[in-house]
Amino acid sequence: MNKKKIINDPVYGFINLYDDLIYELIEHPYFQRLRRIKQLGLTHLVYPGATHTRFQHSLGSVHLIQSAINTIRSKGHDISEEEARAVKVAILLHDLGHGPLSHSLESKWADDYNHENLTLLMMHMLNEQWEGQLEMALQIYQNKHPKKFLHQLVSSQLDVDRLDYLRRDSFFTGVSEGVIGSDRIIKMLSVKDDQLVVEAKGIHSIEKFLIARWIMYWQVYFHKTVVSAEQLISRIMQRAKELLGKGVELPASEPLLYFLNNRYRDDTREGMVRMFSKLDDTDLDVAIKSWSENHDRVLSTLCKNMLRRNLFKIRLQKEPFSDGQVQAAREEAVKMLDLKRDELDYFVFTRSITNKAYSLSGDQIKILYKDKQVKDVGEASDMLSLPVLSKIVKKYFLCYPGENNTIL
Amino acid sequence: MNKKKIINDPVYGFINLYDDLIYELIEHPYFQRLRRIKQLGLTHLVYPGATHTRFQHSLGSVHLIQSAINTIRSKGHDISEEEARAVKVAILLHDLGHGPLSHSLESKWADDYNHENLTLLMMHMLNEQWEGQLEMALQIYQNKHPKKFLHQLVSSQLDVDRLDYLRRDSFFTGVSEGVIGSDRIIKMLSVKDDQLVVEAKGIHSIEKFLIARWIMYWQVYFHKTVVSAEQLISRIMQRAKELLGKGVELPASEPLLYFLNNRYRDDTREGMVRMFSKLDDTDLDVAIKSWSENHDRVLSTLCKNMLRRNLFKIRLQKEPFSDGQVQAAREEAVKMLDLKRDELDYFVFTRSITNKAYSLSGDQIKILYKDKQVKDVGEASDMLSLPVLSKIVKKYFLCYPGENNTIL
Amino acid sequence: MNKKKIINDPVYGFINLYDDLIYELIEHPYFQRLRRIKQLGLTHLVYPGATHTRFQHSLGSVHLIQSAINTIRSKGHDISEEEARAVKVAILLHDLGHGPLSHSLESKWADDYNHENLTLLMMHMLNEQWEGQLEMALQIYQNKHPKKFLHQLVSSQLDVDRLDYLRRDSFFTGVSEGVIGSDRIIKMLSVKDDQLVVEAKGIHSIEKFLIARWIMYWQVYFHKTVVSAEQLISRIMQRAKELLGKGVELPASEPLLYFLNNRYRDDTREGMVRMFSKLDDTDLDVAIKSWSENHDRVLSTLCKNMLRRNLFKIRLQKEPFSDGQVQAAREEAVKMLDLKRDELDYFVFTRSITNKAYSLSGDQIKILYKDKQVKDVGEASDMLSLPVLSKIVKKYFLCYPGENNTIL
Amino acid sequence: MNKKKIINDPVYGFINLYDDLIYELIEHPYFQRLRRIKQLGLTHLVYPGATHTRFQHSLGSVHLIQSAINTIRSKGHDISEEEARAVKVAILLHDLGHGPLSHSLESKWADDYNHENLTLLMMHMLNEQWEGQLEMALQIYQNKHPKKFLHQLVSSQLDVDRLDYLRRDSFFTGVSEGVIGSDRIIKMLSVKDDQLVVEAKGIHSIEKFLIARWIMYWQVYFHKTVVSAEQLISRIMQRAKELLGKGVELPASEPLLYFLNNRYRDDTREGMVRMFSKLDDTDLDVAIKSWSENHDRVLSTLCKNMLRRNLFKIRLQKEPFSDGQVQAAREEAVKMLDLKRDELDYFVFTRSITNKAYSLSGDQIKILYKDKQVKDVGEASDMLSLPVLSKIVKKYFLCYPGENNTIL
Repeated sequence: MNKKKIINDPVYGFINLYDDLIYELIEHPYFQRLRRIKQLGLTHLVYPGATHTRFQHSLGSVHLIQSAINTIRSKGHDISEEEARAVKVAILLHDLGHGPLSHSLESKWADDYNHENLTLLMMHMLNEQWEGQLEMALQIYQNKHPKKFLHQLVSSQLDVDRLDYLRRDSFFTGVSEGVIGSDRIIKMLSVKDDQLVVEAKGIHSIEKFLIARWIMYWQVYFHKTVVSAEQLISRIMQRAKELLGKGVELPASEPLLYFLNNRYRDDTREGMVRMFSKLDDTDLDVAIKSWSENHDRVLSTLCKNMLRRNLFKIRLQKEPFSDGQVQAAREEAVKMLDLKRDELDYFVFTRSITNKAYSLSGDQIKILYKDKQVKDVGEASDMLSLPVLSKIVKKYFLCYPGENNTIL
Repeated sequence: MNKKKIINDPVYGFINLYDDLIYELIEHPYFQRLRRIKQLGLTHLVYPGATHTRFQHSLGSVHLIQSAINTIRSKGHDISEEEARAVKVAILLHDLGHGPLSHSLESKWADDYNHENLTLLMMHMLNEQWEGQLEMALQIYQNKHPKKFLHQLVSSQLDVDRLDYLRRDSFFTGVSEGVIGSDRIIKMLSVKDDQLVVEAKGIHSIEKFLIARWIMYWQVYFHKTVVSAEQLISRIMQRAKELLGKGVELPASEPLLYFLNNRYRDDTREGMVRMFSKLDDTDLDVAIKSWSENHDRVLSTLCKNMLRRNLFKIRLQKEPFSDGQVQAAREEAVKMLDLKRDELDYFVFTRSITNKAYSLSGDQIKILYKDKQVKDVGEASDMLSLPVLSKIVKKYFLCYPGENNTIL
Repeated sequence: MNKKKIINDPVYGFINLYDDLIYELIEHPYFQRLRRIKQLGLTHLVYPGATHTRFQHSLGSVHLIQSAINTIRSKGHDISEEEARAVKVAILLHDLGHGPLSHSLESKWADDYNHENLTLLMMHMLNEQWEGQLEMALQIYQNKHPKKFLHQLVSSQLDVDRLDYLRRDSFFTGVSEGVIGSDRIIKMLSVKDDQLVVEAKGIHSIEKFLIARWIMYWQVYFHKTVVSAEQLISRIMQRAKELLGKGVELPASEPLLYFLNNRYRDDTREGMVRMFSKLDDTDLDVAIKSWSENHDRVLSTLCKNMLRRNLFKIRLQKEPFSDGQVQAAREEAVKMLDLKRDELDYFVFTRSITNKAYSLSGDQIKILYKDKQVKDVGEASDMLSLPVLSKIVKKYFLCYPGENNTIL
Repeated sequence: MNKKKIINDPVYGFINLYDDLIYELIEHPYFQRLRRIKQLGLTHLVYPGATHTRFQHSLGSVHLIQSAINTIRSKGHDISEEEARAVKVAILLHDLGHGPLSHSLESKWADDYNHENLTLLMMHMLNEQWEGQLEMALQIYQNKHPKKFLHQLVSSQLDVDRLDYLRRDSFFTGVSEGVIGSDRIIKMLSVKDDQLVVEAKGIHSIEKFLIARWIMYWQVYFHKTVVSAEQLISRIMQRAKELLGKGVELPASEPLLYFLNNRYRDDTREGMVRMFSKLDDTDLDVAIKSWSENHDRVLSTLCKNMLRRNLFKIRLQKEPFSDGQVQAAREEAVKMLDLKRDELDYFVFTRSITNKAYSLSGDQIKILYKDKQVKDVGEASDMLSLPVLSKIVKKYFLCYPGENNTIL
């Protein structure tokens, strides 16, 4: 086979794919679909450069995992060719199950399926098409493979997923605070007692990585304007479902209507996945343009606001908003928008977001010392303290219409 | 007004917009639409990072023109506040008229309108909405303003459009060959006899700029796989129009059907522009997914191929392909695809591309010497020779189906 | 005057100097001398790229302070042209008093003069030459100017000195962990009640800045091999002084001998400064090469080790080394090196280093909220806690000869 | 052996050295000396960032050659482990013979020895110390090894020497025009009939490389202020030799005096190399500081000018300067400087520089097509034409004192 296997990537320069199976999987429509799923959903409304996709991120993750495999092997730990391929396949496909605009909307598509379930389902189907060649990748993805550290490379608090997305999201948003030394971290990886560990001289890179992740959360992922935009698209989907539920007809693409109308409930798993594999960001984009002229004033207003980037005003605070605060915002909105009471909930509402830099439960990041001792990073770091690191930060926000959110 | 006026840009770091009019224009749906028009159309099929949009490019161009204004003023040439605003507005809006997937398809949308005409039409409409505030910007855009160098900043062989897109396209494709020293070039700009000129010590940056542009053409814009992808989308549009012309119903968004059905011919200019302003890359994306299961085998095959990135094979050469060569490819395709004669033209065809690095006619790049002499860059450069620079390179290509282009 | 005022800087691209006085001061031999003082002393023995100089750093600091002035003015705070010039002069000259190889050796040159004293002395002399034009710069440098925030720009926990050196040192060492968003921080600067403050939306950049500084300390400035190298040069100077004190003749340049022989004690301040202004890294380099063949075995061994980058082995720990540990290392060394007891102190010794990320005393970093409230960064940050931030980390180290430190 | 083998490099990120012999050679004083030889001599007087050294460049070249070896092997061409080591050693040591401030001064040190001869001599001595382990490296360096392409990697018009220095010099000067896609070029390398070739799809990278080299010559290496500075140091050396020849005593380091006094003529080769290995940039720096107060007015003036960066004025033109032009400059200088006729030659003189982008003789760059055909790049490129590429550009320059070059 004469396949081009070098890919230009603005983040790493060149990505080499040394494996034909990887290359064939990339060509599958399931994977090509990720070209139409932006990595950061609506974040480009705040950071215009952030139009990068899950397609790029998945390739970048394979690149990093190849490098990690080489490093770990060079330190005397065995990874067979078959295992190497499997771990690459697992990371390549780890984002298959992401729906359009990812996190903010994912729970909306099909009741019981979060994106991990969907990924798994799609991997199983690919495994059938490739006649079992993805068996070990599935094991690793589900942490059923005897070498636990392979799963940790794919999914843990120091997996290549995070290493790639932090660096890539920094690159495309232009937020230099998130730049991490992924090269150095990977060079410091090793294995001890079947656990992924970081050599002690890499401790500062890990500190930096944890901090960078924290900062990216607050500066980008939870940027208040991003949160506001996600709430807007969420309200749009909610209103569309409500109208469809009442029997109103809405123009939209077939896969979008399929999910909004809950048709998957009467369908087979295979049917659902087939339809899901045709759903991406562009279905929402086209629907919003069309709905911006709908008869329903709530839906058309919300969609017009999206098209004009006329987002909700948003206020964040550490305490829940009192009923009085919410009520005051509602009164203000009523004056401004001439809405019915039951429509108001689409324009004034409160929710919360939470984050912590590091989780104390499960797969903590382990530091390996020269004397073979292993410590948790929270214990090993002079700078970071476990209580601070693992503290959950919760913020409440209130959304309400700005000056131009008038019903037109 | 309390507006956020600093924009994070991965290419320049920060972009400051100092003008409320600029900010208001950005919020208009005409401009927000550019978020959904990729700068490089289908190029991301070859360079996955190239998902950047005309929205970013337009903002970047304003950034560069602000810097150029400052430089030119600092050298004693007068640019009034009103002129500065007008030139910024002109460059901000210069890409409004681009249709989906830009260059490869633009001629298809509406008979007499290329993207410049459409830009002009849309600027006129915005000018009405803003009650004449865009008058001078329109003059500059059309080169009717008395200060000719202002138009040259917006449109010439050394305009900020090119300075931004070369640098930005390099950045997002990861093709370092196209990186140009736009900072240095701008610092060297000046004006002499109402002409934009470059100070002599900037000569090498100009040489580099011309070469970089040439290289980007062949490495990116005319990359043979990009050309192949553009031909595929072009065939898809052609087939869809043909089917619609025969009265076949095709599912698609309203604005897409409007143009494919030539409905603009019976519409007002305003009606046409209103519909055009709702058309972007996502309408094509959604249509292709839908059409990939159409009854028409030609259409569905072409669309399936697009979704699988199963592009035409393509051969380039300096001479036209002979009838014999084309015929041979057709025979091969017939064996492979089981097509009718008249369907074959969608799968086997020849076209050409041309390029030159520098045009000898019109607004040549002028170099200003310390003794106030002005020379054309072709004359001033030791390295570049005019005949080489202005030579037209023409390449012919033949597209034909690859192994997997079977009708499914 | 026709002076070139644009300087190419690999970190910022271009540095524009808009002021003739600045340009003249740069040409003075006092300032040109900084071309021969490496910013990071011997750090290039670990990070080979780190050959950048205090000359570059000083220019970069002027660049940043110009940008800070523009930002602060744009927010409505008055800085007169005279004050702007003075603050630029102050930061330009702030490193004049650094001796060769800076921190590790500075205390050795002249009893009572640290580098700040020397800077002040040299600024006074330049002020005389320029007939009082540096008066206000001197006031600002000494915090005697009524506008306190001008001094804070030059010297505080968030001064442009730190902003430049962190970014520059990251750039040249290649340690990406230290990269800071200096652009963003500067854009967020403001003034409140004559205090330099950072607007609240810049809080994460400040968190990142404090962390980056901490990491650079441990990864670069206090890198154990750098510490070892600094100890080696320190021992060399100590031995040279000892030998000279005993009347032994050592070849060396005039200014180096002047200081090693304590001749400044009998000289005027002016004489001392004149000699100091001729002393730089190269005097040590040349001396070490020459002394590597000296009759004194201690001196020649130390110098040979430096030339071969055959540095002391070094062990770090949080507790002081016990007498037993030191004694054991001495025994080992005696076996290896055939040294006299009193010579042993040059090859086996213990010292300590300390660091804290943030000081609670004095000029804390202040965050300005939209409601005009001002908080200390330690209080404002969700991530950082004051006790952790201001904790002093102290590490003890033990140096001893490695395998090749044989007396040759 | 427990050696640190990963080196931080600001240009490439990490450099891995996989070979203990390489590591041992790096520790040798011959190689460590390159830390004190700046890659670009006095260029930092124009581009302050350019303080990088031949030490870094040599390591970077090893990094690139390792990558080239991997690429060539992956295309099925055999390179044994022994050959790989030898080619790495050859490139590591290729700059050993460079004297202080390199090109501008090299011919001055020892009559018959240019830097290549000296490199060879030093490699022979190291080969003795390592008991013949460098034999094959010597063969490759001298093009006596049967596999000619190995020599081409080390020395040809497309060697890793050029690939590294162009990229590195761009990085440290901040001149983005010189940035080359060294990664891409190396990925495109192959071997055909024992010749280093570039695959056809790399043609644009080669075009860019040739142009970038051309531009770096005129923008950096032959920047007129750099040329002026090199002439100044050259005059200083010339005057010092003249004075020493007359029996005047001048303070200077031992190795510097050794060469200035031509003592190598009476010495063995080994003696000469031993002394040469102690001579570096710092010997000149220290001497210039000392000589700036010498009794000889010519010498002290030249040295003072160097310390103040008070360089000669310089004028470039394509034709030789006429006697009249030179005479006029002399008259002007006499008025200004109060010099004797025979001293005037140190302050007013004319010389020339030449450059061509590509040489037609010898080891041209070869492009390999898919049909196995091989063409010279000049023939293969649509953009470059052989006559233009190989044209020799010669420029004449005239140096004369500026306003401040007064004899003090």
